[in-house]
Amino acid sequence: MGILSRIGIALDSDLLKRFDRSIRHRGYTNRSEAFRDLIRDRLVTQLTADPDSTVVGTVTLIYDHHAHGITEKLTEVQHENHELVVSTSHAHLDHDSCLEVLIVHGKSAQVARFADRLIGLKGVQHGRLVMTVPAHAIEHPHESGHKHSHKH
Amino acid sequence: MGILSRIGIALDSDLLKRFDRSIRHRGYTNRSEAFRDLIRDRLVTQLTADPDSTVVGTVTLIYDHHAHGITEKLTEVQHENHELVVSTSHAHLDHDSCLEVLIVHGKSAQVARFADRLIGLKGVQHGRLVMTVPAHAIEHPHESGHKHSHKH
Amino acid sequence: MGILSRIGIALDSDLLKRFDRSIRHRGYTNRSEAFRDLIRDRLVTQLTADPDSTVVGTVTLIYDHHAHGITEKLTEVQHENHELVVSTSHAHLDHDSCLEVLIVHGKSAQVARFADRLIGLKGVQHGRLVMTVPAHAIEHPHESGHKHSHKH
Amino acid sequence: MGILSRIGIALDSDLLKRFDRSIRHRGYTNRSEAFRDLIRDRLVTQLTADPDSTVVGTVTLIYDHHAHGITEKLTEVQHENHELVVSTSHAHLDHDSCLEVLIVHGKSAQVARFADRLIGLKGVQHGRLVMTVPAHAIEHPHESGHKHSHKH
Repeated sequence: MGILSRIGIALDSDLLKRFDRSIRHRGYTNRSEAFRDLIRDRLVTQLTADPDSTVVGTVTLIYDHHAHGITEKLTEVQHENHELVVSTSHAHLDHDSCLEVLIVHGKSAQVARFADRLIGLKGVQHGRLVMTVPAHAIEHPHESGHKHSHKH
Repeated sequence: MGILSRIGIALDSDLLKRFDRSIRHRGYTNRSEAFRDLIRDRLVTQLTADPDSTVVGTVTLIYDHHAHGITEKLTEVQHENHELVVSTSHAHLDHDSCLEVLIVHGKSAQVARFADRLIGLKGVQHGRLVMTVPAHAIEHPHESGHKHSHKH
Repeated sequence: MGILSRIGIALDSDLLKRFDRSIRHRGYTNRSEAFRDLIRDRLVTQLTADPDSTVVGTVTLIYDHHAHGITEKLTEVQHENHELVVSTSHAHLDHDSCLEVLIVHGKSAQVARFADRLIGLKGVQHGRLVMTVPAHAIEHPHESGHKHSHKH
Repeated sequence: MGILSRIGIALDSDLLKRFDRSIRHRGYTNRSEAFRDLIRDRLVTQLTADPDSTVVGTVTLIYDHHAHGITEKLTEVQHENHELVVSTSHAHLDHDSCLEVLIVHGKSAQVARFADRLIGLKGVQHGRLVMTVPAHAIEHPHESGHKHSHKH
């Protein structure tokens, strides 16, 4: 993951104690790792807000497979946007409900529009989009180091 | 999906025009469907905030598969919590980065703690948890209609 | 508030029951009012995400008034941006901590940049920006019906 | 603000460069200050999610002062919950719209319920609650160092 920098930061002792307790509680064994995650989380939020960023993400959909025409419609919308879909997987939640999760990639604005269309389909009961960027793209946001962008 | 109710609501005409424009832009062809999604989205947010709700969801993880021991560690933590994991899928984003998405289910608080552990692993660069509930559970939150809760 | 429209929508009876229970719990006595609030909340989120929207809002700041130079610095940054500040108010929380809340208005992007500067000041311990738009601007987002935009 | 601790953390150089660029853009002149703000923001989010935390905050309301009985109703609900309200201030946005901001304090769950009631009032067009905690409470969440808790 490239060259490491070591930096020093000054914090109130009480704030540091609270932070250490909080990250231990979340399962971190290493303070630097917690700082890296805080920083990446903030940068990812900024990057994915830019419509031109190349993002990867997941679209989580809950739907009732009995709803008229829903499976055909989902397949059709996905094929129209096949260049945005890396893969999909599926779980049968109960007699009626399905959870489908799509791994997606592309420009932030396109991915968001695609997710809106899927979530808006009649029969889809609930949906959420998560966008993120690979580490390489956090650190060098203006290169296109994304494999899928080259291949398609 | 059970019995339909028809209700009347009163809205300022200008607000309605704006709403119609906004949902058309998001791909809705049907106003009732947009209202249903607004309502479900609000109810899902309330339900998943309750630590005792049974939820389904996805954990999206970005990691560098070169990071020392990361794949073993991810496998180990998932096996320790196998009753929370329905399935996983995986995409190779570029030379270094992997995206792994887990379909998870269980009590909201347990799922959140499990996601925290995965996201906190050394080598995981970024992660996000999405929680939702199947339609059945939105409408009858206190029954346990969830297939996986019975089987495991 | 202008002309009212009456519309009919179709909802699963169970979903409607859950919604009614949830809004009663939140203090609504009127279902139409709850729908209006859901719609406005969604539209406000969309509008304030547009950097060119005229917004109003509040910046909530927590700071330690003992921190060196903080009150001078806060005053200075506010005067540099006086056209964005409608008014401020202040509460003494304890021996050390102050809460200051600024009512702000202007273009979304400018207001966000101003809030970032305030929150980033050394001595400000925590800050949050809330943006909204007056009803008139939700319904007619491209007119400039905002009093302060005319006067200043 | 008490005793300072100096700690060292290790970060990928590229990630650090991105972070430095991002905080400079947000107006920070000091890297430690940016880290403190990141940590506090995370801890505040955790603390305010606990219904028993003592919080301070602001409720921002937009309403049309022509709406029948709205000013009386707002006054009445505030008086019923006077122990939660520190102060209020008000801006006249245009011919119809008012922005009112309340500085509130109390237990997180009570403050949230109070904000829900205000936001749900007929005539209130939009509202948002921001909760935070004074620095003292971030660092020592289980003492009640809050001035208002003693006095009322």
